[in-house]
Amino acid sequence: MVLKTVTVEDILAYLGDDVLTVFGSVADRVIDNITDVARVNERSLDWINPDKEDKQTLAEQSKSKVLLVDSSIIYSSALRQQDKVLIVTSNPKYSLARIGNEFFVEKTIPSIHPTAIVSKAARIGANVYIGPYCVIGDASIGDDCFIDSNVRIYDGVIIGARCNVKAGAVLGGSGFGFERDKDGNQFRFPQIGGVVIGDDVEIGANTCIDRGALSDTIIGDYTKINNLCHIAHNNRIGRNVTITGCVNISGSSIVEDNVWIAPNVSLRGFVHLHRGCVVGTGAVVTKDIPENETWVGNPARKLEKR
Amino acid sequence: MVLKTVTVEDILAYLGDDVLTVFGSVADRVIDNITDVARVNERSLDWINPDKEDKQTLAEQSKSKVLLVDSSIIYSSALRQQDKVLIVTSNPKYSLARIGNEFFVEKTIPSIHPTAIVSKAARIGANVYIGPYCVIGDASIGDDCFIDSNVRIYDGVIIGARCNVKAGAVLGGSGFGFERDKDGNQFRFPQIGGVVIGDDVEIGANTCIDRGALSDTIIGDYTKINNLCHIAHNNRIGRNVTITGCVNISGSSIVEDNVWIAPNVSLRGFVHLHRGCVVGTGAVVTKDIPENETWVGNPARKLEKR
Amino acid sequence: MVLKTVTVEDILAYLGDDVLTVFGSVADRVIDNITDVARVNERSLDWINPDKEDKQTLAEQSKSKVLLVDSSIIYSSALRQQDKVLIVTSNPKYSLARIGNEFFVEKTIPSIHPTAIVSKAARIGANVYIGPYCVIGDASIGDDCFIDSNVRIYDGVIIGARCNVKAGAVLGGSGFGFERDKDGNQFRFPQIGGVVIGDDVEIGANTCIDRGALSDTIIGDYTKINNLCHIAHNNRIGRNVTITGCVNISGSSIVEDNVWIAPNVSLRGFVHLHRGCVVGTGAVVTKDIPENETWVGNPARKLEKR
Repeated sequence: MVLKTVTVEDILAYLGDDVLTVFGSVADRVIDNITDVARVNERSLDWINPDKEDKQTLAEQSKSKVLLVDSSIIYSSALRQQDKVLIVTSNPKYSLARIGNEFFVEKTIPSIHPTAIVSKAARIGANVYIGPYCVIGDASIGDDCFIDSNVRIYDGVIIGARCNVKAGAVLGGSGFGFERDKDGNQFRFPQIGGVVIGDDVEIGANTCIDRGALSDTIIGDYTKINNLCHIAHNNRIGRNVTITGCVNISGSSIVEDNVWIAPNVSLRGFVHLHRGCVVGTGAVVTKDIPENETWVGNPARKLEKR
Repeated sequence: MVLKTVTVEDILAYLGDDVLTVFGSVADRVIDNITDVARVNERSLDWINPDKEDKQTLAEQSKSKVLLVDSSIIYSSALRQQDKVLIVTSNPKYSLARIGNEFFVEKTIPSIHPTAIVSKAARIGANVYIGPYCVIGDASIGDDCFIDSNVRIYDGVIIGARCNVKAGAVLGGSGFGFERDKDGNQFRFPQIGGVVIGDDVEIGANTCIDRGALSDTIIGDYTKINNLCHIAHNNRIGRNVTITGCVNISGSSIVEDNVWIAPNVSLRGFVHLHRGCVVGTGAVVTKDIPENETWVGNPARKLEKR
Repeated sequence: MVLKTVTVEDILAYLGDDVLTVFGSVADRVIDNITDVARVNERSLDWINPDKEDKQTLAEQSKSKVLLVDSSIIYSSALRQQDKVLIVTSNPKYSLARIGNEFFVEKTIPSIHPTAIVSKAARIGANVYIGPYCVIGDASIGDDCFIDSNVRIYDGVIIGARCNVKAGAVLGGSGFGFERDKDGNQFRFPQIGGVVIGDDVEIGANTCIDRGALSDTIIGDYTKINNLCHIAHNNRIGRNVTITGCVNISGSSIVEDNVWIAPNVSLRGFVHLHRGCVVGTGAVVTKDIPENETWVGNPARKLEKR
């Protein structure tokens, strides 16, 4: 459990306009952790989920003395008697996430580790971190990117700002395209496209994103890709797409904005997932999926509302 | 084929009380390999599976002169005429495994490779091997662990004794949890939990185990995880669990002791696999599985005995 | 987009006997790119797919001035008026692939990067490239191999000529085989076999191929394996097999020549895929598959022609 002493006043200052009201006495109050429900203690910053039916009771029974709540929680005599502080925001979990990122997540100092091998022709933005044992070709990496250890980035990869590339990821490797020679043996079709990654993208550990064959592989802004995914050549992935663990996106597919792809899904090549659709765990997608529909199964079919 | 000359006397001394009886003359007898059935030769140590119907014949026809057998094999005149040695134990395959590990598996000399980057705040136990190009943060690694090359271990990871972490594994990376900001764009929910791994655990090559968000990700003693698995944040995996290749365990699931998970299985988040259950190849688990049941398919359902 | 100026005369010289006829004036003509249909321009080398119904129109409307076509395209007045050059071959895509590989794919200069750690007992062929941060044991690597960065190759791995091993691959790690000791705890069964890889094999990024337990794991000539695949111990894979992304091949299976395995397929152990069969995306193979059949689904079943 990460322990850091933070004053409630500093929290309120950081949240700024997010704070609708504060109940209880703030002076000299501190918290030193945020943690899961089983470990919440007197010095935790806790939060109450607005969707819970028994949220008032949860607030009153929390071991924590400082709580993030929404405006449906009443500053009851029980809360008052325990001298609890309520920080009221419209979205307590969002506020908790902001506080956690600001006060409890270790910040890395931008730097290029001396063991990272970076091509002289690479364009590296401002405030970039590149970890040990990375190998980076003639690529472009935007400002404020974090590239973890043992990452391989090939020539022709363009990465936007504030991206997070986790350990062991491989970006821009040759796509998997082959022809047969006159003896029927396979040989590589040239893979000379690029990879273009937007801003605020996350790429998971040991995930692979192949370069395009003759066109580019494209990943849109705010898209988050988890560990051990394979994104094949020529895919075009939109903005704010969520690609969870072990997903395989075969070549030349289109995934529009705000699509949500559950773990271990596989897409056949050349399919088109329209905006906002959801693909369930382990689904095998062999056809296009219309906007906002949820598909599951092998082969994937529309999940009818029950 | 690994060749090492080992005397039968050394084998008997090593097996100790496991040996129930020995038939044939042991003096000056040696073996120099253990191998598969197709390659067994005069100098192999062979073993006879007690479950085979024709086990007596297999023993008599084996090209090997030294055999591990159970007590159901008779030291027949055929065996005698071939001057074969029978080493009788209650479990010949178990005895073979012990002999193989002792005499034929190369032992690594404990050491930390000079290219491994290990935080000064890391706690490294006795007799630990850490291979080339590892990057290890403020973690704790127990006695007699073997950490292969190119492994990334983050701050806050605790590993017990005698664990084997294979090449390219990533332990303790940030979990995959996101919130939406006021513009609807995804940003990371803080991932500040740890990873706690027991004793005698094996973690496969390029496998990823994420740190907890606010709690810990836990792996129990003797649990074996194969290559290319993704164990997401907040999972609690019990003891002696077998997780084979390419398995995806989504977040906040519970997997109890002695569960067996076949290749390419995916678990939806928040499911509970009870003690001793078995999940078949490629199954997509969307519900809790009761004790000792076998589930298969997409979605996974109980396999009824036929 | 990779830009390189190449004369049509050099292309014709390189293609040699592949060229059936040339229409139009070749003198002083150059191209400087090959690219996808959306980006084809005046200086592209384009190709016309012989299977397209409207291929004559496609040739006439292409923005490119130099086209690879088959003999069914007529050098019409429209083509003539645009001063287009047609290079006629029996298989235009094959010709394009050859040209792309020859003129547009960057060649790596054979070398062993100074940070690669290669055992003194390793046998490294002529014209081999070994990238940064590789760790290579007592293995044998054939002529003209390309081993990308962060690759781990263990003792006892034998690789043929002209193989391409992509970043982060792990070859020859211990297979996933365990016994239970007298307390019911799992411990490793010795994994002392090898890995034998043929000529012209491709192994994808972060793919893992385990050594055999007592026998060898075998991969045949011209077989192509994509990223993030797990090939377990004792598998025997034939020639010209295509194993696409995220495929799991469990132990002791046999995959014959020219089998095609779609993404995210998983094979149960001990199955036999006969020559030329096709396994569809996400299929879970639990039984042997006869020659030339196509199987899909979970569990996989024969796909009947519709």
